[in-house]
Amino acid sequence: MSVMERTVKLGRDDPRRIIHSLKVGLALTFVSLLYYWRPLYDGFGIAAIWAVLTVVVIFEFTVGATLSKGLNRGLGTLLAGALGVGAQHFASLFGQTGEPIVLGFFVFLLAAASTFSRFFPRIKARYDYGVLIFILTFSLVSVSGYRVEKILELAHQRLSTILIGGATCIFISLFICPVWAGESLHNIIVSNIEKLANYLEGFGGEYFRYEDGENVDEDSKHNKLSSLQAYKTVLTSQSSEESLANFASWEPRHGKFSFRHPWKQYLKIGSLTRQCAYQIESLNGYINVPTEIQVAIQFRRRIEESCNAISSESGKALRILASSIKTMTNPSSSSKTHIENATAAIDELKNTLKTGYMESSDLLGIIPDATVCCILIDIVKSVEKILEAIEELGVLASFKSVEPTVSPEKSTQLLHRGIVNPLFDGECGDHVVIMVDNEVEVGKSHGLEVKPSNGEMVCK
Amino acid sequence: MSVMERTVKLGRDDPRRIIHSLKVGLALTFVSLLYYWRPLYDGFGIAAIWAVLTVVVIFEFTVGATLSKGLNRGLGTLLAGALGVGAQHFASLFGQTGEPIVLGFFVFLLAAASTFSRFFPRIKARYDYGVLIFILTFSLVSVSGYRVEKILELAHQRLSTILIGGATCIFISLFICPVWAGESLHNIIVSNIEKLANYLEGFGGEYFRYEDGENVDEDSKHNKLSSLQAYKTVLTSQSSEESLANFASWEPRHGKFSFRHPWKQYLKIGSLTRQCAYQIESLNGYINVPTEIQVAIQFRRRIEESCNAISSESGKALRILASSIKTMTNPSSSSKTHIENATAAIDELKNTLKTGYMESSDLLGIIPDATVCCILIDIVKSVEKILEAIEELGVLASFKSVEPTVSPEKSTQLLHRGIVNPLFDGECGDHVVIMVDNEVEVGKSHGLEVKPSNGEMVCK
Repeated sequence: MSVMERTVKLGRDDPRRIIHSLKVGLALTFVSLLYYWRPLYDGFGIAAIWAVLTVVVIFEFTVGATLSKGLNRGLGTLLAGALGVGAQHFASLFGQTGEPIVLGFFVFLLAAASTFSRFFPRIKARYDYGVLIFILTFSLVSVSGYRVEKILELAHQRLSTILIGGATCIFISLFICPVWAGESLHNIIVSNIEKLANYLEGFGGEYFRYEDGENVDEDSKHNKLSSLQAYKTVLTSQSSEESLANFASWEPRHGKFSFRHPWKQYLKIGSLTRQCAYQIESLNGYINVPTEIQVAIQFRRRIEESCNAISSESGKALRILASSIKTMTNPSSSSKTHIENATAAIDELKNTLKTGYMESSDLLGIIPDATVCCILIDIVKSVEKILEAIEELGVLASFKSVEPTVSPEKSTQLLHRGIVNPLFDGECGDHVVIMVDNEVEVGKSHGLEVKPSNGEMVCK
Repeated sequence: MSVMERTVKLGRDDPRRIIHSLKVGLALTFVSLLYYWRPLYDGFGIAAIWAVLTVVVIFEFTVGATLSKGLNRGLGTLLAGALGVGAQHFASLFGQTGEPIVLGFFVFLLAAASTFSRFFPRIKARYDYGVLIFILTFSLVSVSGYRVEKILELAHQRLSTILIGGATCIFISLFICPVWAGESLHNIIVSNIEKLANYLEGFGGEYFRYEDGENVDEDSKHNKLSSLQAYKTVLTSQSSEESLANFASWEPRHGKFSFRHPWKQYLKIGSLTRQCAYQIESLNGYINVPTEIQVAIQFRRRIEESCNAISSESGKALRILASSIKTMTNPSSSSKTHIENATAAIDELKNTLKTGYMESSDLLGIIPDATVCCILIDIVKSVEKILEAIEELGVLASFKSVEPTVSPEKSTQLLHRGIVNPLFDGECGDHVVIMVDNEVEVGKSHGLEVKPSNGEMVCK
C-alpha cells in the first residue's frame, strides 16, 4: 500500500515521468517490429538486437540527454569502426601468429588511452558515453574481425540498426511530449530565485515576532517555518543545474529558446543564487533564537522597520527578476526601484546604528541582531549581482524590453536618508541637527521639522 | 603541448587514474582471448562479444562501483531472462498471429513499468543499472526468442560469457591495486575536515592584519589567501560523497573497514562539515573588508585575542578530529580540551562585549566585527556537533581508544572566565569587582590581583 501511495505521488509530482515511461515502452515495441516483421528481419537478421540495445541505452528523460547519448553513440561507433577495420587490416600483415598479438596490443593501448581520457573533466562532461562506445566498438570490430570475414557487411548491418534505434528514440523524444533540458534548467533557475524571494519576503514576519504579546498557534507557526525552508534545496542544486546545462547545449531550437541560447549564463545566475542561499542559510540560524534580554528587545524594535524593509524589498526585487527570466523580458525598472528601496532602507538602518543611543554598553545582547543586519546588507549586494547577471542574460539571449504599465512607487516613508546627530554642545540645548543629503526625497521624519539644507544647522 | 601538460598533470594528481586505465586495457585484452583462443571460441561462438561488452560497461574506477554494476548486471540479466522465457512461452499459446501482439504488449508494459521505477530515488541510487539491464534483456530474450529456437542454449552462452566478463572485471579490480570507494570516502571526509581546520587556523592571522604598520608583500598575501580558499570545495562535495557511500556499501571487508562499516555516518559527518563550511563561507566575506574607521580598529583590537583563540582552537579541534577519523581511534580528550578552550574564549569574548565600554555610540563601524564574533561562536557549535557525530561513528565502527601520551595544556591565559564589572557605587572609588567562577583555573589577569572568591567582592 505504501509502495502504491509512493508510486502515485511520484507520478503526480511530475506527470512527465509517466509520459516518459510510456514513450520508452513505445520506442521499444516499435524497434521490436524489426524482429516480428519478416522482410525487415531478413534484411538485418541477428543484428536487429542492436536496435533494441540502442533504444534501451540512449533513451533518456530529456531531449538533450537523448540527443547527446545518441550522437555520442553514433560518432563513437563510426570512428571506432573505421579504426577497428584499419587495425585489423594492419594486423593481418603480421601473419597467422602475429595477428592476435598485434590486435591484442592495439586493444590494450586504445582501451587504456580512452579510459584515461575519460578523466578529463571536459570529456567526462560531454563525451563520456561516446568514449565508452568507442572502446566497445573498437574491441568488438578488431576482435570479431579476426573470425568473421564479412566484416563490412556486419558493420553495415550494425550501423543501420543502430541508426534505426537511435532515430526512433530521437524522433519519439523530440515529437511526443518532449521534455527539454533547457526548459527545465530555465524553470529550475526561476523557481530557485522564487524560493529565495519567498524566504526574504517572509523573513521579517518570522524574525520580528515577539512572543510576549501574541497567542501563537504552534501548528501554523510550524507550517510557516517549513514553507520558508524551501530555499534549502537551492544549496545543493549545483550538479543538477550543470548536467541540465550540458544537455541543453545539445538541444535544437525549441519554444522560446534558440539553438545557441546562453545556457552558461544560467549557470552563472544559478551560482549567484546559490551564494545568496548560503547567506540565507546563515540568516536562518537566527530565526527563533529567543531574546529575553530587555536591551536586545529594545534594539530589535529599533531596527525592525529597516530590516523588514531591506528583506521584503530584496525579496520583491528577486520575485520580479524571477518573473523577468520566466517571461524572457528585460528586468523591468521596478526591480531596480525595489533594490533602491532596499538600499535606502540600508542607509536608514546604518543611521540608526550610527547614531543610535545605546541604553547600556551591553553589546553582547544585541550582537545576534547586529549580525542579522549585516547579513541582510550582504544579501542586497547579492541581489544586485543577480540583477546584473540577469541583465547580461537579457543581452545575450536578446530578451524583449517590456515596461510594466504600473511602476511601483518608491517607498518614500523609508527615504529620510538624513543623519540625525544628537547635539549637546553650545546653546542649542536638547535640540538636534539634521543633515539631509540634497538629492534625496524627504518624507515625514517622525514629527521633527526638516529642511533639506545641505549640511546647514537647524536650531529651534 | 598544452594537452600533453594537462595529461601529465591529470596523471600526477592521482596516479590511480593511470593504473585504472591500464587495468581496463588488461581486462579487455584478457576477454579478447575468448576470440583468439580456438577452443574457447568453439564453445561460445559469437556470444563472446557479450564478454567484451560486459567488461567495457561495468569496469568502473572504484571496486564498489564495479561490484555494484556487475551484480546489477548479473541479477538484471537472470531475472529478465527467466521472465522473458516465461513471457515467450505464454505468448506462444496465442498462435502464429497472436504471439507478436502479446509479446509486443509485454515488452511495452515491462519497459514502461521498469522505466517508471527508475524514478524512485532509492532504486535510482542503487539499482538503476540493474533495471536498465532488466529492460534490455527482457526485450532481447522475448523478442529474439520468437525467431531463435535454441533460446536456452543462447541464454546459457550469454550468461556464461557475461559471467566471464564480469568475473574478469571484479577479479582485476579487486586484486590489482584496488581503488576502494569506502577508503576514498573516508579520505574525502578527513581532508574536508582538514580544509576547514586550515581555514580556521589561518583566519585570525588574515583577519586581524592591520595594514597601517606592516609592509605587506602582495604576492605572499595572495598565496596565503588562495590556500585558505581550499574550503570552497567542501561546499559542493555532497553528490560525490553520496555516490561514494553508495558504492562503498557494495564493497567487501578491506583494510581497516569491515563489510558493514557505517558509511551512512560518514554522510552525516560530511553534511555537518558542509554546514560548517557554509558558516566559513559567510566568515570569508569579512576578510579583507577594509576598516578605516578608528572606532572599528579599536574595537577590533579588543576582540582580537578572543577571536583568534576561538578560531584557532576550533581549527585545532577539527584537525584532531580529522586525524581521529584518519587513524580510526576515538577522538582523544585533547579535541575536547580545544573545544573547551574555544568555549572559554567565547566566554571571554562575551565579557568583552558585555562590559566593553564603547568609545562612541557608533554601532555601524563595529557591526562587521560583531558579525565575525557571532559567526565564530556558531562555528564552535558546529565543531561540537561534528565531534558528537565522530564519537557516534567511533561507537558504530568500534574505533580503538588511544590516549595520546602528551595531552595539550589548557590554555590558561584565556581562562580568566570572570566577569569584570566597573564599579562606581560606594567607597571603592575607581576600583573594580571581579567575580570568578569557582571551578575555573585562573590565569594572569592583566596585572589585576584576582582571587577565586565565588562572587565575593574584592576591594582594594
